[in-house]
Amino acid sequence: MNRRSFLKCSALGVGGSVLAALPVRAGGADGLPELKAPETPAELHCGCQQMLVPGKSFAERYDFLEANGYDRVEINGGNWEWLAKNADAMAEAIKGRDLRFSVTCISARGNAGMADPVERRAVIDTTKSILESAARLGALGVITVPARKKIELPFPELRERYLKEILPEILAHAEKLGVCLMMEPLNRNETMFLRLVADGAAIARDADSPAIGVLGDFWHMTTEETSDMGAFISAGKYLKHVHIASRKTRKIPGVDGEADNYIDGFKGLKLIGYRGAVSIEAGYPKGTSEGQKRKLLAQAAALARRQWEQA
Amino acid sequence: MNRRSFLKCSALGVGGSVLAALPVRAGGADGLPELKAPETPAELHCGCQQMLVPGKSFAERYDFLEANGYDRVEINGGNWEWLAKNADAMAEAIKGRDLRFSVTCISARGNAGMADPVERRAVIDTTKSILESAARLGALGVITVPARKKIELPFPELRERYLKEILPEILAHAEKLGVCLMMEPLNRNETMFLRLVADGAAIARDADSPAIGVLGDFWHMTTEETSDMGAFISAGKYLKHVHIASRKTRKIPGVDGEADNYIDGFKGLKLIGYRGAVSIEAGYPKGTSEGQKRKLLAQAAALARRQWEQA
Repeated sequence: MNRRSFLKCSALGVGGSVLAALPVRAGGADGLPELKAPETPAELHCGCQQMLVPGKSFAERYDFLEANGYDRVEINGGNWEWLAKNADAMAEAIKGRDLRFSVTCISARGNAGMADPVERRAVIDTTKSILESAARLGALGVITVPARKKIELPFPELRERYLKEILPEILAHAEKLGVCLMMEPLNRNETMFLRLVADGAAIARDADSPAIGVLGDFWHMTTEETSDMGAFISAGKYLKHVHIASRKTRKIPGVDGEADNYIDGFKGLKLIGYRGAVSIEAGYPKGTSEGQKRKLLAQAAALARRQWEQA
Repeated sequence: MNRRSFLKCSALGVGGSVLAALPVRAGGADGLPELKAPETPAELHCGCQQMLVPGKSFAERYDFLEANGYDRVEINGGNWEWLAKNADAMAEAIKGRDLRFSVTCISARGNAGMADPVERRAVIDTTKSILESAARLGALGVITVPARKKIELPFPELRERYLKEILPEILAHAEKLGVCLMMEPLNRNETMFLRLVADGAAIARDADSPAIGVLGDFWHMTTEETSDMGAFISAGKYLKHVHIASRKTRKIPGVDGEADNYIDGFKGLKLIGYRGAVSIEAGYPKGTSEGQKRKLLAQAAALARRQWEQA
């Protein structure tokens, strides 16, 4: 039943008294399209990179997150070797909590954009190692950046090689491990290669594997995307993770005041039924004390929940 | 008032009888976001490239379009010199009709992707000539393709030069003339440079001129976009023109049967309040007679209107 048929009902005396109160988007008459609800409604899961959280141990950091509105932990803190060494300690520290690991944000070695095949091989090998650690930790997956500033290959060749040479071996490994590789588009100051969420989604589609997805980072999106909602709708089923930061200075969400509005993006997440994490990757304003850091993190989770409700 | 407050009203006995009949997308309870209707609702304007229409003269072609559900004419038929020579005849032929010229689809000379500055200069000069013809005809604007397959410049340099060297002079001219330059993203078989509607919108935003926009072509979008709706939402106010063709073989819409579904894209157009043309750029199946061509064109306009209603 659309608004037109509803109006018809009203004319017949059914429910006429609430007509004026119907939301404007409720039907055809206002020019809005009929949109299908996702099969399962979206859910907000607040996450944070673990090393942003004050604390002397993983356990202390997780204690804080658990108590302050977070239910997802993003694994960061070092490179692929550090991760392999520390995975058991993290697994031990998260046991029995209402927290889960979302993804790893851990650098691989090598550079897929280089002409030297040794550089490209290193990406494959170290990314596979990170995938193994992620699987041990029960994480959803592994963030990867296909290329940064330093790129020797022409862009069309890089895209082709990324799809045909880099991804297949990594994705075969990821499929076996049951974890997902998520490509993160960056803004133009960090790369010109993969900047748009829709472009990452297109690579994910072309790679044709259940173990690949794309990430949307509100910070990079602020510079690159013309519409947060459009970007997330384009990402659709390929969207596996979301990064969030303040929108002017890449600090904890809320630090930039009115600019820290994520509602349009959250509308997109609701439209696609997103259930992954919305996870903080950001810094603190200079000189922030440990106590202030805790306060900012608690406020950021509350801000995300408030704007999610408003979306 | 959202669905939740509406539910509250219902509990108080107001309008309870229509509750079950509300569209699923009507409120928060189904997980869909609150979407704002555009300030002015979208309108469908069916267009077609004039040379696709059977006829011996411009007048005969326009007669047919006017009588068969079209109200926009896309100007094609030759290069910038042909356009300048034929503009008066077209202007004469369209006088007094319920038809308007939408845009020109006319090739400029030169190549913005070349290292040779003479090639880049030619793009500027011939595009300015096309803009002048478009203005004489009262058209909304001029389609341009920033780069095709043959590209010598590294992509980041091409993007930079396009923004700093190619666009400013063209856009200053376009602003003076009151017409718009529209960048058309193509699919990967025709270019690797500008493939995504969101990327075109980002260039339009960066160019910061009222005289620039982006085009969405359903044919190219079929290959490149992961979501027609997402792409059009990202295009937003920068979307100035839409091309439509059958989605498997780039023929007149409808020729590819069930595949020719534009509803998801039309939902996006409704969300952004699009009022430009949806214009056919396509071919005919081999051996199509003049009579069959007329029938296909009439059916295509009807198909677009039907799917627009369904969106």
